[in-house]
Amino acid sequence: MTLMVKKFGGSSVATPEKIMAVAQRVINDKRSEDKVVVVVSAMGDTTDHLVEMAKLMTNVTTGREMDMLLSTGEQVSIALLAMAFTKLGYPAISMTGFQAGVSTNTAFNKANITHIEPSRVLSELDKGKIVVVAGFQGMTEDGDITTLGRGGSDTTAVALAGAMKADVCEIYTDVDGVYSADPRAVSTAKRMKEITYNEMLEMARLGAVVMQPRSVEMGKRYGVPIHVRSTFSQQPGTIIREVYTVEEKEFVIRGVTHDTNVAKIAILGVPDSPGIAYKIFAALAKANIDVDMIVQSIRNVDKSIIDMVFTISKADVVEARAIAEKVGKELNILGVVIEENVAKVSVVGAGMFGSPGIAATMFGALSDAGINIEVISTSEISISCLIQANQAEDAVKVIHSRFFSDEA
Amino acid sequence: MTLMVKKFGGSSVATPEKIMAVAQRVINDKRSEDKVVVVVSAMGDTTDHLVEMAKLMTNVTTGREMDMLLSTGEQVSIALLAMAFTKLGYPAISMTGFQAGVSTNTAFNKANITHIEPSRVLSELDKGKIVVVAGFQGMTEDGDITTLGRGGSDTTAVALAGAMKADVCEIYTDVDGVYSADPRAVSTAKRMKEITYNEMLEMARLGAVVMQPRSVEMGKRYGVPIHVRSTFSQQPGTIIREVYTVEEKEFVIRGVTHDTNVAKIAILGVPDSPGIAYKIFAALAKANIDVDMIVQSIRNVDKSIIDMVFTISKADVVEARAIAEKVGKELNILGVVIEENVAKVSVVGAGMFGSPGIAATMFGALSDAGINIEVISTSEISISCLIQANQAEDAVKVIHSRFFSDEA
Repeated sequence: MTLMVKKFGGSSVATPEKIMAVAQRVINDKRSEDKVVVVVSAMGDTTDHLVEMAKLMTNVTTGREMDMLLSTGEQVSIALLAMAFTKLGYPAISMTGFQAGVSTNTAFNKANITHIEPSRVLSELDKGKIVVVAGFQGMTEDGDITTLGRGGSDTTAVALAGAMKADVCEIYTDVDGVYSADPRAVSTAKRMKEITYNEMLEMARLGAVVMQPRSVEMGKRYGVPIHVRSTFSQQPGTIIREVYTVEEKEFVIRGVTHDTNVAKIAILGVPDSPGIAYKIFAALAKANIDVDMIVQSIRNVDKSIIDMVFTISKADVVEARAIAEKVGKELNILGVVIEENVAKVSVVGAGMFGSPGIAATMFGALSDAGINIEVISTSEISISCLIQANQAEDAVKVIHSRFFSDEA
Repeated sequence: MTLMVKKFGGSSVATPEKIMAVAQRVINDKRSEDKVVVVVSAMGDTTDHLVEMAKLMTNVTTGREMDMLLSTGEQVSIALLAMAFTKLGYPAISMTGFQAGVSTNTAFNKANITHIEPSRVLSELDKGKIVVVAGFQGMTEDGDITTLGRGGSDTTAVALAGAMKADVCEIYTDVDGVYSADPRAVSTAKRMKEITYNEMLEMARLGAVVMQPRSVEMGKRYGVPIHVRSTFSQQPGTIIREVYTVEEKEFVIRGVTHDTNVAKIAILGVPDSPGIAYKIFAALAKANIDVDMIVQSIRNVDKSIIDMVFTISKADVVEARAIAEKVGKELNILGVVIEENVAKVSVVGAGMFGSPGIAATMFGALSDAGINIEVISTSEISISCLIQANQAEDAVKVIHSRFFSDEA
């Protein structure tokens, strides 16, 4: 017997026909002794449609009432999917987030799961039913409905698998696994049979879009293997877990990622005295702006001023500029320069810490291709270089070819 | 301060614009000290649309999963209406049936409210909020979502008003009150300022469609005055309550109703021995077929056989015929004759018990108009005659003109 959670996203359940196809697929894969929980998102563009209606009522499309509204999307999906299973001869029961025991904090629109009490889910499984659970939603202590924000259905699936001590959580998606680079950029990118939670988290942070970091963290915390696989194929995909278990030709580097949703801020002529960096970054943190790749360079020893360079998400440029200029004025700096035409290219691998040649190989590949590196930053399991945005895909290709054999 | 529940049906909230108009209307009518709960149905044809989707999944559009599906309709309405109030500057909060404390039994699709615990509603009112509650839905002890079936939103509104000891429950609808006859049939029909619960129940039973009997019964049980009024007018409508309170020219008869959704069954040549009627009606009751206007006539004294005549709803004809023929065979009867081309016309009035001339006046009106009476039945507050269906509107007109002055 395998106890498993399977998650299907909105595009997999976009129409009644597709919902029936999901039911058929789950049944085909299910051995009679297996216990299966299916987590689903709202149908296709339902969420967009609900948001549109809300916009006709108000310009405040946040808060408690938005979650009341949006949570209906998954509730429609679960009811229809449970009907599909029953129609195909398999007893099934649908459950809202609340009914499945998903408790959250009160951060409407982006709530965090605080606890899952899966006793009703387990008891329905024991009765031989397939349990269909609404992703993306939960309930506060006070009985208010919440949604979990972006990637919320993945989070529901992994957290529920953790709470039930499931054998595996399968995430069905439109790609068939985690690749050594974005296959749209690198045609020879390799699908990984396995990857560690830490590598996946680092790749997600550095631009890979397969999984939201939140659900990978949840898997890591509860020790749930996450199987990322294709809705449209029977082939196994990539299993995200704590350590490798399969024999596989070991690549030190597990992935090459790139991220063009990045902007570079240079704060020029900052007085080089204690607490200055704190003032700048505290102001940015207060505005919830994530800062990455911080570099501090001595510009002129005589004048005791330095330049601070860091990267942020493109979405934060306007706000970050205002903050940087305001703080800069107080600190009497020379100026703020923002460049949006940049990209971050990174290599990720848990084994790189003991392999000193990685950085040299990466820089060499970029140099040979005539690509200039503007900023470098490293972590225990990654190295990132900031380059010009229009060179990002070339950079991924040349780096990938150095670390991976280009044979298919 | 008035504590009130206002209920708006699906056609009143069919579009975002109409939802905004409902919010505006509620606010215009609200004095600052009033406490207002608004109960709403699903938007326009949302329920039909959801049923259509369910039919694409399965032919079993009943049971738990249907309620999971259908209850999303009201949840969308309440979220949007709460947003509309907030947009107009009035703090509001939406609540599902569950959140408003509506507990039901487990009869999915037609659940009965077993209990309402309105403490959260009352506490939000105390905070100065307008509370928007989803009609038509509740939750079982086990946490399953239920719907209340036809007229369910009215029932929610009246039951909630009862549980909160509200001063009044206002039902907003597309007619502006309860009339002495269907205004489409009788142009001189009069709007009643007040009518008793018992009269309204009898009128509903006998064909008036303004209110479902269930919510009127609920109002009677909890002593909540129900104000039936128009969504599109500021005029007061009709108040349904235990006894009259206003000075009004007293009509003994309060309404003339007609019902063409009726069929007559004659079971001919039934042996006239004890327990025979029980056998027939027990079999019908077991199939949930409501029987009305029962008449038993001696046909032939010598042969000791009788005819049994009764009426049922047209929807039950096929099943009733099968039952009558099966039971009839066992009883060795002469035959079963069913006539669908009939209508029931009735007069209703709580004061008629002490006015012996009512029946004579009604029969005289029909006789003068050349309308033949096939079956007569009476209750403490009504008299009904079964006639040919094509004479129903004429019958209502002539009876109405005898009991009501035709002046506008």
